[in-house]
Amino acid sequence: MVGVGIIGLGTVGRGTYDILKEHRRLVGEKTGLDIEVLRASEIDPGKRKALGVDDPGFFCDALDVVNDPSIKIVVELIGGTGLAYELIMEALRANKWVVTANKALLAEKGNDIFGLAAEKGCEVGFEASVCGGIPVIRAMRDGLVGNRIDYFLGILNGTSNYILSKMSEEGLPFHKALADAQKAGFAEADPALDVEGIDAAHKLCILTRLAFGYPISMEEIGTGGISRIEPIDIEFAREFGYKIKLLAVAKEENGVIEARVEPTMLPVKHLLSDVNGVYNAVYVVGDRAGPNLYYGKGAGALPTGSAVVSDIVDMASRIGSRCVKPGMRLFDGGRRIKTSAETITPFYMRVKAEDSPGVLSKVSGILAKYNISISAVTQKGRKEKAHVPVVMLTHEAPEKSLKEAKAEIDRLPFIKGESVHMRIESGGL
Amino acid sequence: MVGVGIIGLGTVGRGTYDILKEHRRLVGEKTGLDIEVLRASEIDPGKRKALGVDDPGFFCDALDVVNDPSIKIVVELIGGTGLAYELIMEALRANKWVVTANKALLAEKGNDIFGLAAEKGCEVGFEASVCGGIPVIRAMRDGLVGNRIDYFLGILNGTSNYILSKMSEEGLPFHKALADAQKAGFAEADPALDVEGIDAAHKLCILTRLAFGYPISMEEIGTGGISRIEPIDIEFAREFGYKIKLLAVAKEENGVIEARVEPTMLPVKHLLSDVNGVYNAVYVVGDRAGPNLYYGKGAGALPTGSAVVSDIVDMASRIGSRCVKPGMRLFDGGRRIKTSAETITPFYMRVKAEDSPGVLSKVSGILAKYNISISAVTQKGRKEKAHVPVVMLTHEAPEKSLKEAKAEIDRLPFIKGESVHMRIESGGL
Repeated sequence: MVGVGIIGLGTVGRGTYDILKEHRRLVGEKTGLDIEVLRASEIDPGKRKALGVDDPGFFCDALDVVNDPSIKIVVELIGGTGLAYELIMEALRANKWVVTANKALLAEKGNDIFGLAAEKGCEVGFEASVCGGIPVIRAMRDGLVGNRIDYFLGILNGTSNYILSKMSEEGLPFHKALADAQKAGFAEADPALDVEGIDAAHKLCILTRLAFGYPISMEEIGTGGISRIEPIDIEFAREFGYKIKLLAVAKEENGVIEARVEPTMLPVKHLLSDVNGVYNAVYVVGDRAGPNLYYGKGAGALPTGSAVVSDIVDMASRIGSRCVKPGMRLFDGGRRIKTSAETITPFYMRVKAEDSPGVLSKVSGILAKYNISISAVTQKGRKEKAHVPVVMLTHEAPEKSLKEAKAEIDRLPFIKGESVHMRIESGGL
Repeated sequence: MVGVGIIGLGTVGRGTYDILKEHRRLVGEKTGLDIEVLRASEIDPGKRKALGVDDPGFFCDALDVVNDPSIKIVVELIGGTGLAYELIMEALRANKWVVTANKALLAEKGNDIFGLAAEKGCEVGFEASVCGGIPVIRAMRDGLVGNRIDYFLGILNGTSNYILSKMSEEGLPFHKALADAQKAGFAEADPALDVEGIDAAHKLCILTRLAFGYPISMEEIGTGGISRIEPIDIEFAREFGYKIKLLAVAKEENGVIEARVEPTMLPVKHLLSDVNGVYNAVYVVGDRAGPNLYYGKGAGALPTGSAVVSDIVDMASRIGSRCVKPGMRLFDGGRRIKTSAETITPFYMRVKAEDSPGVLSKVSGILAKYNISISAVTQKGRKEKAHVPVVMLTHEAPEKSLKEAKAEIDRLPFIKGESVHMRIESGGL
């Protein structure tokens, strides 16, 4: 029997506990391993009670879980980057193997954690930290180990994807789709982490380290959210053959790494364009295996619990012989992050312009000054002297130039408010 | 350094060799492991020469690869179920760990092979045997270990999928699309294994054992091919909102297992309907993680080589401590295979009927006799006294009844040739 201790019985902790209990026999049949949750720590008495465990010794302090010699695998599911960090480091010092779903912590303190784990000959499992029920860590790290990863694209945040799907399917404005997501339990009361791209950036941080062995920090990830997207952008995108997704993108070329999370236009024919609702997916292109796509539920008690359990079981088969898998190794080589001037893609831009002669000429004149050429322009509606949306698609242009041109355009007297721009990502199509 | 020996330098063998050689440093950076191909066996002098290896001791007989004490992992890539079987068993007896891409062999003699491996404390890696470059074995076995698999659907044969995609996109008849596939190098001169569903059934056999722990045999898999599909079927399917795929389906419910490979209609909105060309994909539904989809290239030197390499690297990290992963364990419990009478789905049926009054009444009368009710009927074209295709969609009906009704319909004097029927699979939609 391999003893497991769970710290935190919130959504994922409870899901993990339930799966290990209800599928103890099934996991045994599949693997020959007997895995038992021996103790758990949870500050909320209601959650403790809800578990229905009679044994008075089952519940204990987090540090007791860490230090109990019968517990071999410590599962950290309290979240946050304070106490969770201390507990994981303490567990590693006590020679425990650790499983966590804590993306923020790994993104911010992954180097410390994996460093100490390597030093102690311990392992840290983090399948649950990215894309919940999809075994994407396993796939990228182990399945594609024989590949240099050329690039990957991901829909890594289910809340944002749900909101964009709602906006796209029902024509709702952002705030209504958000309210709908909150009502459905897919968005927090404070949705900033999700809709501003931060949660996705945490996950991208983990996947980028895994794919490229580069110790990327959150500051190096260009991050944008979806709150400024309007139904009209989605409509225009559709007309041009695109879908708007909060897309995480990471690429490596000649030692230069690009990593960003922002609303992005993707060809409607791309497989990722069909990923709707709370689902997540990652499209990875290896230099040998070619394109792969992994799709599934990115969050929730049972999908994420399923990922936690996959790490626990995998570890349980190796912990006896202390046969450690490498965690997140950093590769040699002086890679660096791509600058905004080097980031060259086609763009979508929407301006709110007064509907009068000469406006388009002025706007396109500024773009031309920055060497940006336009591939399509369209204006919706006609309201003389009123402001109407005008959208443009550009040919490939450096992001830096586009942003400078946009700032200049936004200073024109007949332009109202801040314009919106979005990258267009071909995704190999 | 972990020594590897490759038996067979055909397409996949050469791809494996190249990846291990060209990415030796990258794999080292990712894992800390140094893996080297020490020897290889290949009967074709041209293929030996093409490798450009100077060392005269590098090439040897297959048995020398198996018995060389410096070789820890033996990679069998000659295919077939004769010599390949002998060599794998010999390698296991010599305490070697084995990697193979041989789906036919595992489908037919998997029980022997995994049995001996377990007895000897050795491991057999078979990621490359199903879906080439997609790490689907890893995902289903390890990633979803905490799940009872409810069912999975797969597009497991790239050749058939390429042909069906061509037929669908360009309206080609089967034999033209096949010729096109042969010209493009995606189909063999003798395409029977691919287009008759046998290759896909071999893979389904492996996945079914993995998912349900049931020792299914090829005879227990209902297998059909795509050679009788006509462009008109694809057209009708489209009208009704379906795509035709050579679909592998495996389900378990209350201890009864269903496993089949045959042309099947799938809702056009299902993610698998977007899997075109030589791509493969598996849609797996776990009871905890929910639906997952894995997509990628199902064949080819480098995608399949990438899968072989993933097994080699995984094993190399554990072989020193002989820390064995369970191979294909069979679960307890007296499961059985679903009978044709218990297999209840909606069906598509196309008959070639004389265009005269009373025909439809006769046909639907026979269906009614077997208790099969029709949800839609349509006839293309009118040619009095000539034969025109009439298609029907039925509500849910037992396969047995449908087949009996079809046989009776086909005996009607005004029906020409054998009618075509196909299951309709909702795939959770």
